[in-house]
Amino acid sequence: MAADQRPKADTLARRQRLISSSCRLFFPEDPVKIVRAQGQYMYDEQGAEYIDCINNVAHVGHCHPLVVQAAHEQNQVLNTNSRYLHDTIVDYAQRLSETLPEQLCVFYFLNSGSEANDLALRLARHYTGHQDVVVLDHAYHGHLSSLIDISPYKFRNLDGQKEWVHVAPLPDTYRGPYREDHLNPAMAYANEVKRLVSSAQEKGRKIAAFFAESLPSVGGQIIPPAGYFSQVADSREKTSSLTSSPWASPLAMATLLPAWPQPSLWRGHLKPPALSTSTRGVGLFIGVDLIKDEATRTPATEEAAYLVSRLKENYVLLSTDGPGRNILKFKPPMCFSLDNARQVVAKLDAILTDMEEKVRSCETLRLQP
Amino acid sequence: MAADQRPKADTLARRQRLISSSCRLFFPEDPVKIVRAQGQYMYDEQGAEYIDCINNVAHVGHCHPLVVQAAHEQNQVLNTNSRYLHDTIVDYAQRLSETLPEQLCVFYFLNSGSEANDLALRLARHYTGHQDVVVLDHAYHGHLSSLIDISPYKFRNLDGQKEWVHVAPLPDTYRGPYREDHLNPAMAYANEVKRLVSSAQEKGRKIAAFFAESLPSVGGQIIPPAGYFSQVADSREKTSSLTSSPWASPLAMATLLPAWPQPSLWRGHLKPPALSTSTRGVGLFIGVDLIKDEATRTPATEEAAYLVSRLKENYVLLSTDGPGRNILKFKPPMCFSLDNARQVVAKLDAILTDMEEKVRSCETLRLQP
Repeated sequence: MAADQRPKADTLARRQRLISSSCRLFFPEDPVKIVRAQGQYMYDEQGAEYIDCINNVAHVGHCHPLVVQAAHEQNQVLNTNSRYLHDTIVDYAQRLSETLPEQLCVFYFLNSGSEANDLALRLARHYTGHQDVVVLDHAYHGHLSSLIDISPYKFRNLDGQKEWVHVAPLPDTYRGPYREDHLNPAMAYANEVKRLVSSAQEKGRKIAAFFAESLPSVGGQIIPPAGYFSQVADSREKTSSLTSSPWASPLAMATLLPAWPQPSLWRGHLKPPALSTSTRGVGLFIGVDLIKDEATRTPATEEAAYLVSRLKENYVLLSTDGPGRNILKFKPPMCFSLDNARQVVAKLDAILTDMEEKVRSCETLRLQP
Repeated sequence: MAADQRPKADTLARRQRLISSSCRLFFPEDPVKIVRAQGQYMYDEQGAEYIDCINNVAHVGHCHPLVVQAAHEQNQVLNTNSRYLHDTIVDYAQRLSETLPEQLCVFYFLNSGSEANDLALRLARHYTGHQDVVVLDHAYHGHLSSLIDISPYKFRNLDGQKEWVHVAPLPDTYRGPYREDHLNPAMAYANEVKRLVSSAQEKGRKIAAFFAESLPSVGGQIIPPAGYFSQVADSREKTSSLTSSPWASPLAMATLLPAWPQPSLWRGHLKPPALSTSTRGVGLFIGVDLIKDEATRTPATEEAAYLVSRLKENYVLLSTDGPGRNILKFKPPMCFSLDNARQVVAKLDAILTDMEEKVRSCETLRLQP
């Protein structure tokens, strides 16, 4: 495989010519060419190893051998639609049902999270006979027309807000209207939703659904993905019971991050991506909100971009999120270890310290070309 | 694998309990349990071999070893999103571009035909600044909300026609307003579209796009599918050059079908799935329109359902389509051979002859329970 590799500049030139520029690259100023991945690591065309803090879609790690083998065994035998009877799809549905409340007992297997949310919207509208939707501010529910319409994160830059969409404030206890010092921010945010719904109803609008973040969704209408996911579930159980593979405790990162030396630029504020007002990170999904100033909590957008680029130079893949694009978004595969967390934290610390020195000596935070 | 099989009745019971009934089964009165497939054949849990005239999605045949191997090799190495540089995606785009007119030179790789059509609609609307869409009657463009809105096949049974959707008559030279005996049906149908557009514009409507059947689309945003499709292209070339694998000439079926003995019930009318008014089948995609009466051309809906069920009992998988569900829809994988066509035609002939006798002796066409 390595023998056939194009030089990176050639791949980039072809990409710019042939693939729409709407299909964004990570680190657009100097994209990474990834040719291989294993577990929590990705490798570029030079063989350099990156710690992956981005790709939680690879739940049990990139190219997990059990998952790869299961996909291969299934692909050799059958890969077709679900209009024939097959054990895999029903057995996987059964297995899922055992992890869910009793009422959630009928399954649709779809092609993507977007297709799942589109169907959820159709089901809600069909069931209620209503059209309107309540969503949270800054939410993203998928890349289809129907979901862009209910994603403030998207529609604000595109067609704007439709009359049947009602936007509730994000229950953000750090920058929103009700903060840590509020007596009961959960209740206060819930009351905002109530008020929004009442006000919509007074205008004669009828609510079909409340979308609070993307609904849980599972890809794969065809049979192998069902086998794949089933195998992912297996691998998760098997891998987590192997002592030789030390998985990070779900909150290892969350407990580690706030503890590390904090330069003045850094505010170790951990914020979940959505709804929850008390947890500051769910499992390995952790947000770190970078601010310029403690009083105003102004998002440190440029600093976050700079930090992520510097991390990439240091072989850590990380991305930002949030309306101010100032939140470092950690969502590594679940095989991310405590050692990985320590390495990432050490690198973050070194870069932040360097940034602090640069800021102190009035240097601009600019990446080496 | 076979050792783990549930009895078919158990699989069916679990399916009915766990999977939404909107996810239809083929042959719902007696569904087939398929456990394995190879080339143009599918196998049930008893090992019975079916000739597959349904699954053209498996372009080069089910579980083609070259395709399976390519997927496996890629899955072992890397399976991630397209936000990193990678050769496969650009090389495949390059390869596709070489088969297309020069203007079609920018590519988006998506997850499904539905996601592709949804994006096409967004692109058209963004580019023109218009909202309205012209579609053909009975068309189906995908299963997403945005596409159900422009699919008469779907919206007639659901929310009805939106004011921004304009439905042109299907250019059907068999049952439509302009038929075989018309001097220039192509022009006549095109003029219908012109009139529809003018009339919409007079009412102040602005057309963004004309959807004539599903746009060509290629699945797979992630890298392996790109490898997969590339391998499909390879296999297609390799396989078609192997003399030991006698592929059906694209029009073998089309030439064979009208030639076989025609009982009176049968009218060997071949009709393409869409637009073209002269071709009566494109490649291996052939429609056979069953009618009750030559003068009225009344769709023989029940007869088509009966025929398809009988074929299934005779180990031929076939489905129906069309507004009257009376069109036998042949769309086998491309490895379908001339021998397969002869076998299918012989079985069809035997069943039709039997049906004709039953009808002559006033027996009801009813399937054995």
